[in-house]
Amino acid sequence: MSRTTALIAALAATALTTPVLAQNRPTSAASASVAADVAKLRDAALKDEVAYDIIEGITTEVGPRLAGTEAEARARTWSVAKLKALGFKNVRIEPYQMPVWVRGEETAEVVSPFPQKLRLTALGNSGATPPEGLTAEIVYFPSVQDLQAAPEGSLKGKIAFVSNAMVATQDGSSYGTFGLARFAGPNIAATKGAAAIVIRSIGSDHGRGPHAGLTNFAAGVTPIPSAALSTADADNLSRMVARGKPITLKLVLTPRQIGTQESGNVVAEVPGSDPAAGVVLIGGHLDSWDLGTGAIDDGAGIAITAAAAKYFLTGPKPRRTIRVVWFGSEEVGGFGGRAYAEAHGKERHAAAAESDFGADRVWRVETNLPDSAKAAGDRLAAALAPLGIVRGKELAGDGADVGPMMKAGVAAIDLNQSGQRYFDYHHTPEDTLDRIDPAQLSQNVAAWTTMLAVIANAPEEIGAVTPK
Amino acid sequence: MSRTTALIAALAATALTTPVLAQNRPTSAASASVAADVAKLRDAALKDEVAYDIIEGITTEVGPRLAGTEAEARARTWSVAKLKALGFKNVRIEPYQMPVWVRGEETAEVVSPFPQKLRLTALGNSGATPPEGLTAEIVYFPSVQDLQAAPEGSLKGKIAFVSNAMVATQDGSSYGTFGLARFAGPNIAATKGAAAIVIRSIGSDHGRGPHAGLTNFAAGVTPIPSAALSTADADNLSRMVARGKPITLKLVLTPRQIGTQESGNVVAEVPGSDPAAGVVLIGGHLDSWDLGTGAIDDGAGIAITAAAAKYFLTGPKPRRTIRVVWFGSEEVGGFGGRAYAEAHGKERHAAAAESDFGADRVWRVETNLPDSAKAAGDRLAAALAPLGIVRGKELAGDGADVGPMMKAGVAAIDLNQSGQRYFDYHHTPEDTLDRIDPAQLSQNVAAWTTMLAVIANAPEEIGAVTPK
Repeated sequence: MSRTTALIAALAATALTTPVLAQNRPTSAASASVAADVAKLRDAALKDEVAYDIIEGITTEVGPRLAGTEAEARARTWSVAKLKALGFKNVRIEPYQMPVWVRGEETAEVVSPFPQKLRLTALGNSGATPPEGLTAEIVYFPSVQDLQAAPEGSLKGKIAFVSNAMVATQDGSSYGTFGLARFAGPNIAATKGAAAIVIRSIGSDHGRGPHAGLTNFAAGVTPIPSAALSTADADNLSRMVARGKPITLKLVLTPRQIGTQESGNVVAEVPGSDPAAGVVLIGGHLDSWDLGTGAIDDGAGIAITAAAAKYFLTGPKPRRTIRVVWFGSEEVGGFGGRAYAEAHGKERHAAAAESDFGADRVWRVETNLPDSAKAAGDRLAAALAPLGIVRGKELAGDGADVGPMMKAGVAAIDLNQSGQRYFDYHHTPEDTLDRIDPAQLSQNVAAWTTMLAVIANAPEEIGAVTPK
Repeated sequence: MSRTTALIAALAATALTTPVLAQNRPTSAASASVAADVAKLRDAALKDEVAYDIIEGITTEVGPRLAGTEAEARARTWSVAKLKALGFKNVRIEPYQMPVWVRGEETAEVVSPFPQKLRLTALGNSGATPPEGLTAEIVYFPSVQDLQAAPEGSLKGKIAFVSNAMVATQDGSSYGTFGLARFAGPNIAATKGAAAIVIRSIGSDHGRGPHAGLTNFAAGVTPIPSAALSTADADNLSRMVARGKPITLKLVLTPRQIGTQESGNVVAEVPGSDPAAGVVLIGGHLDSWDLGTGAIDDGAGIAITAAAAKYFLTGPKPRRTIRVVWFGSEEVGGFGGRAYAEAHGKERHAAAAESDFGADRVWRVETNLPDSAKAAGDRLAAALAPLGIVRGKELAGDGADVGPMMKAGVAAIDLNQSGQRYFDYHHTPEDTLDRIDPAQLSQNVAAWTTMLAVIANAPEEIGAVTPK
């Protein structure tokens, strides 16, 4: 999940605070009947084992796959072989070029008054300390707003420390609000003359695995060393701050930009019977942060979407072509999604949907369908109800990778997953196969299979919409 | 918790498998009445905040404190100040000398066929690889027994990999059985000519934080590089093994022995009114493994015992002197416990008890009291019952640090804590303040306060016993 998605979710959550009661109104979905073939596919997919096999495979045989590195290239090779073995058609890599940042050494210690090592990780696009490290006093800020309020120049030669503690929410919107410390904090600290910045990881856990993630510096601002302390280490540092003595940290962070490299999207299809009806675009992202093995972010998304599409490789062709895209380099700026839109933006797309929020159960469906296809939305909600999925009242439109297509007017389906656990592991070393709950993963596959059965086969015209 | 304790617990658990039904017999405890002063102290201690404050303090202001290092020395200085501030008498450091092993670099990666980094940590007393690392093929063993069965010389130049997966048990006994892979595996691998050994961490978690811990090599056996993979990394490596291709690992492990250094015990007392009645010896250990901040192992133990003893600093003197010892260098071989026994073995001790199994609730009490004081054991069990503590049928005698005193015939009390969660964090980076549940911690303090109220004030003679 990227910060763009998070910011959109945060805005949506704000908008939702007023009309809560409206959510209790019955919807037309309740009265829609579920076609027998849709129900049959849905219930078969609840026993799915393909998605788990994909996640098990890529985490074991490839592991971490940072965008633009040889590991991501190995992941593309692995993916082509896997998708071909699953029976997909037109399997191919669509390469593109992108700038690449890579991690170096990263250590930290409290020099005084309470000497001990701290665990942290550099943020994407972080600047570097000298190889021998940087030692400076910290200046404490409870929130990024407090950092923003610091007088210009007041941080000169100091290390800013922002301790804001994220809490989990069902819809993931808190990532957008708390995440500002990561998204914007380093740029703010740099403009105020800070030598470096450390933030409390944007995560809802209490562990020692720091949460990686991208930050960006404005044009003309020189990147400063920027890192996320593990939540436990940040809390320890906050307790030291509370004792009232000056605190000196030593940081060694040696990441670097390695210039333009090749990345790419992996594309696979289930050809449809009616080319004029448009493509249904689904997928997740193939790249991962480099600390974990990318199970929930986003091995799950590529696995769920491919496993669902696979059900349409046998039996009658779906009306619409189902195109599964395993996007490259989402984590570091959404390069794959933009490359897809550039290459395929002129093709007719009926709908788009993305899975990039882990593997916990889908709890809500939202759509942004044209009036001509409102009935398909009702049928979808009715077919998903037995999976414990409620229909939301907002317009769909989530997804960093399919975002450019949605913004261009392609109809959108959001199958929202529970966010209660996701940010315990997101971007940490702990994002490994062990975090996948097979039962919840299968519920996801069933939801996506149901969505494809309804939308890819909808007899209605599905044309352009006004984006969310 | 040390391996000695674990092995004893494992043996005890084996012995328990037959007479399970016997545990359902009523005991005399059920009919003993609880003195009002004991109940009052117990219930006051349920609201204790001193223990949490001690753990918060030592994890924040000292952090990791590996035996024999300057960090452990800082911990002793901190402890003396803390115990004096709490009002204890005769607070002092009792130094001794010990050999010290320290960690170096530690990295690992799968070179082929599935290149990726693995997380691991060197075991205490591990040998070192060359600085540039050691690259070799692994030989897989599901258990230490399989390793033991490998033909002599069959491991020459190879890295042994033992994947045995520990499961948690209420009484902690599984540490003894599964822990053999760590306690004995490296020595076995070394005698069979292995270049190195990696084991699955002895832990019940599914995370990326490896579990440190001691191993020992027999006299004449040259230590080989020996490390514990995190449970998640070991499981990943096992999945690679299951694919059937040869697997090459690169290990960099550069720990070293730094010779004899100073360690020490910190001693504090609540003087009793009757010196002839003997000392009640309680405590935990001050040193910790170096990856975490030593909250559950054993910040909890020093905190629980001191917080309980503190209740006897006000009001009438207890009959017996309560001596709280925060032992040094338990983790690396129980040097503090032996030093105490050498220094104090000839003093009269009435009873001994140790807290070294985390901070989760006490679920069982066992005693080894002389016949003259059986009634005190009954009163103790009755007074603990309202805390949800059952009386066990075995003889008490747990504790690496108080073990030498118990073996010499000092009466023993065991207040057993729940082992369901302990080995998720034991010896890992995750052993931090966040793992302490304040409510369960206070239940511990209440149990220990109750024990002191009954035993330190028992009018009965408490003489020597036959050790467990």
